[in-house]
Amino acid sequence: MRARTARARWSGDRVAGAGATAFDGRRSAALALCRAAAAIGARGWCQGTAGNFSVTLDREPLRLLITRSGRFKQRLTGADLMLVGADGAAAEGEAGRPSAETPLHCAIASVAGAGAVLHTHSVAATLLGEHFSPRGGFTIRGYEMLKGLDGVASHEAEVFVPVLANSQDVDALSRRVRAVLGERPGLHGFLLGGHGLYTWGESLAEAVRHLEIFEFLFDCLSRRIQFQPFTG
Amino acid sequence: MRARTARARWSGDRVAGAGATAFDGRRSAALALCRAAAAIGARGWCQGTAGNFSVTLDREPLRLLITRSGRFKQRLTGADLMLVGADGAAAEGEAGRPSAETPLHCAIASVAGAGAVLHTHSVAATLLGEHFSPRGGFTIRGYEMLKGLDGVASHEAEVFVPVLANSQDVDALSRRVRAVLGERPGLHGFLLGGHGLYTWGESLAEAVRHLEIFEFLFDCLSRRIQFQPFTG
Amino acid sequence: MRARTARARWSGDRVAGAGATAFDGRRSAALALCRAAAAIGARGWCQGTAGNFSVTLDREPLRLLITRSGRFKQRLTGADLMLVGADGAAAEGEAGRPSAETPLHCAIASVAGAGAVLHTHSVAATLLGEHFSPRGGFTIRGYEMLKGLDGVASHEAEVFVPVLANSQDVDALSRRVRAVLGERPGLHGFLLGGHGLYTWGESLAEAVRHLEIFEFLFDCLSRRIQFQPFTG
Amino acid sequence: MRARTARARWSGDRVAGAGATAFDGRRSAALALCRAAAAIGARGWCQGTAGNFSVTLDREPLRLLITRSGRFKQRLTGADLMLVGADGAAAEGEAGRPSAETPLHCAIASVAGAGAVLHTHSVAATLLGEHFSPRGGFTIRGYEMLKGLDGVASHEAEVFVPVLANSQDVDALSRRVRAVLGERPGLHGFLLGGHGLYTWGESLAEAVRHLEIFEFLFDCLSRRIQFQPFTG
Repeated sequence: MRARTARARWSGDRVAGAGATAFDGRRSAALALCRAAAAIGARGWCQGTAGNFSVTLDREPLRLLITRSGRFKQRLTGADLMLVGADGAAAEGEAGRPSAETPLHCAIASVAGAGAVLHTHSVAATLLGEHFSPRGGFTIRGYEMLKGLDGVASHEAEVFVPVLANSQDVDALSRRVRAVLGERPGLHGFLLGGHGLYTWGESLAEAVRHLEIFEFLFDCLSRRIQFQPFTG
Repeated sequence: MRARTARARWSGDRVAGAGATAFDGRRSAALALCRAAAAIGARGWCQGTAGNFSVTLDREPLRLLITRSGRFKQRLTGADLMLVGADGAAAEGEAGRPSAETPLHCAIASVAGAGAVLHTHSVAATLLGEHFSPRGGFTIRGYEMLKGLDGVASHEAEVFVPVLANSQDVDALSRRVRAVLGERPGLHGFLLGGHGLYTWGESLAEAVRHLEIFEFLFDCLSRRIQFQPFTG
Repeated sequence: MRARTARARWSGDRVAGAGATAFDGRRSAALALCRAAAAIGARGWCQGTAGNFSVTLDREPLRLLITRSGRFKQRLTGADLMLVGADGAAAEGEAGRPSAETPLHCAIASVAGAGAVLHTHSVAATLLGEHFSPRGGFTIRGYEMLKGLDGVASHEAEVFVPVLANSQDVDALSRRVRAVLGERPGLHGFLLGGHGLYTWGESLAEAVRHLEIFEFLFDCLSRRIQFQPFTG
Repeated sequence: MRARTARARWSGDRVAGAGATAFDGRRSAALALCRAAAAIGARGWCQGTAGNFSVTLDREPLRLLITRSGRFKQRLTGADLMLVGADGAAAEGEAGRPSAETPLHCAIASVAGAGAVLHTHSVAATLLGEHFSPRGGFTIRGYEMLKGLDGVASHEAEVFVPVLANSQDVDALSRRVRAVLGERPGLHGFLLGGHGLYTWGESLAEAVRHLEIFEFLFDCLSRRIQFQPFTG
């Protein structure tokens, strides 16, 4: 994945073209993110006030438009979003508190060059994360749907999904995420044990596609045990 | 949870601000409750005419706006709601019969200081209630989503969910509920065996959040047995 | 259940009041049935062109408004419905072919006095019917939701659900249904093995409520095996 | 199934009647296909950019209207569709790249005479395909819903669902599909192992009905193992 801003690719999302100014970009980004959040919420992947989402508005210096802390993601509006810088702190002129997990979004935008980051909580992702946390991850193979991940050309590919132990120390977690992303340049997502999925893409559309692909594959893995012992 | 009326917090639900008079309060409360019921119904958590919902309109003396008996909660309108007092009887000037489980709502509003109470029937809650009823409850631990419950700051918290044996003697059940709530001040919900969930919050928004969190965690527990023996 | 026409109870469904003429009654009935079918279809209980629905328009002599053969029940319109008499044949002036299972609707309307009959195909009903067909049925007990069935006052009730072996001989099947209904006056539904559910009510609203209750209970039974061996 | 163009049957789909010119036919076909895709997408059967759909616009010579490569099938518009010929190449005057699996659509339209072909990815189809791929297929019997497949008159019918090993060599796959279709003239669908379902019909309406029937039956088979060992 080459590093770009999400703005450069929104035409692919059929959102009205973002203009040249930061203000226009923010409005288009907010609209696209709220629409994506509504669709994600309808799938049951951000129950309660769970989940947090961001898009990269500027790359140099890094500026993310991210969900504020404690909002219902299922019915997001522009007022639930705010700008943060590379350090995860509120950008100049912004009031309020961004998502507690903002440092992880900054890590992914910066190290993996993501244009959009989606953090969701599904039951399947929670259970697979809980189950495989002691082993540090699991490998998916043999499914055509793997090809929905950028750069995967065959169902015979092996895609490793790292599972990091969950922690309430977000800064420490963020350092571990930076390390994992540094070691695995082709990564499109990882789980936090008993917690949920982080996935991303060059554009918001690609991040949504990766989310749908991972959730589909997690459903396959978690239901497959009905057919045969779980050997993942 | 500090005792408040749900009215004081509705701005958080983005319902048009409740006015100063009881009449205005009732209309806003009814609107918010009908919207919440529609969303809950769409999840399949109040099939048939199951479930009952209330908000606290006044605290001194206690007055609840609660669903009438036998109505389809999935398509609730203001006409399906009525006012009751602290004793669960219809308030002055109200005709008709409130939900048969009104005494449980009064107990929760009064002892736990709830601003809103939601009683729902999901398959997962029914099965977990049936399974753990003989042991009096079960503990949830290790899931990030626990943090969606008010006052829980870490996935390492242990949250106990009491399961009371089901009974058709609502007054006796109500006395047991008052006893359990008195013993466990931090409680946000309990199950009735083979019956369903009672959850609540300081505001209706918080009650809805607690409902979504509990249902997510019940789904995790009931599906987890596919991964490992059930030791709850 | 006392025998009535569904028309007499539609005010409970909030459909505009049926007038005094048969024509008005048919229009209101058709509207209510199409709305119910859309909701049932959205639940996945009449996939393909499966399922058939009827309401009793007149009792003496019996006249049912029933779905035509082969229509998509998920997007039913008035044109997909037709009138049949007590013998299941098209009423005078009606063109086309009613559902192949019309004799079963006539049996239920006539013997059980149903105002509305709903025949649906869910996965849970199909599997429970397949599993219990050799034993002739199964008993549900211990669930609060049983109280959603007319006349059931406690979760301690035992509700027997007959399962009849499936057959393509609809007339023979219809005679067996008449026999079962004659033996069990309080019945609200039965399964055909590997086929689906028939349920009914005094009104369309009651039939929908019975459908939702049965499907909820079937979900409980079919998922309960994850918790303990299946002894139904 | 007799070979016809989908156009000849659209009145059954209640799409405004296709006119006599190719242009009118394409517009009606596109509208019907986009509506079908939205309904299929809402079921979760084409997550990410998975799935591809076609309708037969002309039979001599063969011309298909098919989804372009890489589009989100859940929110298809006419711009996501293009015309291809019998060889799977873009028709004259068409720009862009059709679905990578176009040769399979051509094979089915040509050998089975399909008026519409739907290729979807559900979790149940993926898992059954994975499980039965080594045996080359599986038989479904005993379910009433089998009668939703064209030509099946009884639940006692035995319907064989071939499972072909998945491959990224679409031309080789397409030759195998032609061989299977040649050997089994009454076939309505097959699986690719770990990949998904191909189903079709004389009209788009019939293809959608076959899709819903197969998915229902796949759900039955994949959940049945909770009741008894899997012997399919």
